[in-house]
Amino acid sequence: MSTQDRLIESTRALLWERGYVGTSPKAIQQHAGAGQGSMYHHFSGKPELALAAIRRTADELRALAEQQFSGPGTALERVAAYLRRERDVLRGCPVGRLTQDPDVMADPELRRPVDETFAWLRERLAQVLAEGVERGELTGLDPVATASTVMAVLQGGYVLARAAGSTAPFEQAVDGVLALLATHAA
Amino acid sequence: MSTQDRLIESTRALLWERGYVGTSPKAIQQHAGAGQGSMYHHFSGKPELALAAIRRTADELRALAEQQFSGPGTALERVAAYLRRERDVLRGCPVGRLTQDPDVMADPELRRPVDETFAWLRERLAQVLAEGVERGELTGLDPVATASTVMAVLQGGYVLARAAGSTAPFEQAVDGVLALLATHAA
Repeated sequence: MSTQDRLIESTRALLWERGYVGTSPKAIQQHAGAGQGSMYHHFSGKPELALAAIRRTADELRALAEQQFSGPGTALERVAAYLRRERDVLRGCPVGRLTQDPDVMADPELRRPVDETFAWLRERLAQVLAEGVERGELTGLDPVATASTVMAVLQGGYVLARAAGSTAPFEQAVDGVLALLATHAA
Repeated sequence: MSTQDRLIESTRALLWERGYVGTSPKAIQQHAGAGQGSMYHHFSGKPELALAAIRRTADELRALAEQQFSGPGTALERVAAYLRRERDVLRGCPVGRLTQDPDVMADPELRRPVDETFAWLRERLAQVLAEGVERGELTGLDPVATASTVMAVLQGGYVLARAAGSTAPFEQAVDGVLALLATHAA
């Protein structure tokens, strides 16, 4: 890994563990095994590094989701594959969790990739559902509203699982929404 | 308000604004206008105060939810009233947000009221849905899984709204799940 990559990866790890306010330039340098001069050679400072880290996390999340969205099967099977993909449920969503970081939310530059990622996920899910309606696989549902519902179940499932210290409520929430969707399968 | 109440209310406000780690005993005293001696007369320290603050927030949330759960109308109307109740969506859920506070989640005592509140909400929602099934208002749905889905939509709706800086995705997610539930209305 290049020094630049190590700095970004270290920032991702620290943002996850300690949040924005708890992630100091010094800690990033120590974690990456890079000197101060090296860090400021590659990045103007913590905000630029955090932005690069958040963008990389967001890009990975999109690429993972796209594997299921454009995978084989009916629309409902692809939504099910997305929701039931192997996840570290108790760890939570690396992008969703940023919405609870007050420093990230307060900075329009840092919030943008979070906003864009969720907007993209909702749009792609709506496209998958609309394809299902066009192909006659699904009937009687609004793809746009339903896409937001599916995304909310996922993000809220993480919250319920963390509260319970168990993946059970996440799995129940996913089973429940897939059963509701199955009623609309032709 | 008694000094004890002021200390609890100040802890609630500070936990909300700064999280557990950012809430010092000194800040609680200053916010409450209480001295150190007075604070330690009423509470053994920050953990006991935080527990009292979290319990009070949880009790309020349950009482508010129970108004809709035991309100008038069919099961579906009561679920809709609960989801569409006036909420400060962009502020988020005061209990749900605690699941993102690492210090609260790491302490079994502090996590317990969060866990219990969500378990209670899912159980009450499942009872409301089961009543609807018994009365023939709803058909073909599993009350337990569906209750987790409805709770996840609510908690995830907050996450999507914060990411977007807009209540729109929250409202879409709620509309979407209520439309899916309406398909099961007899």
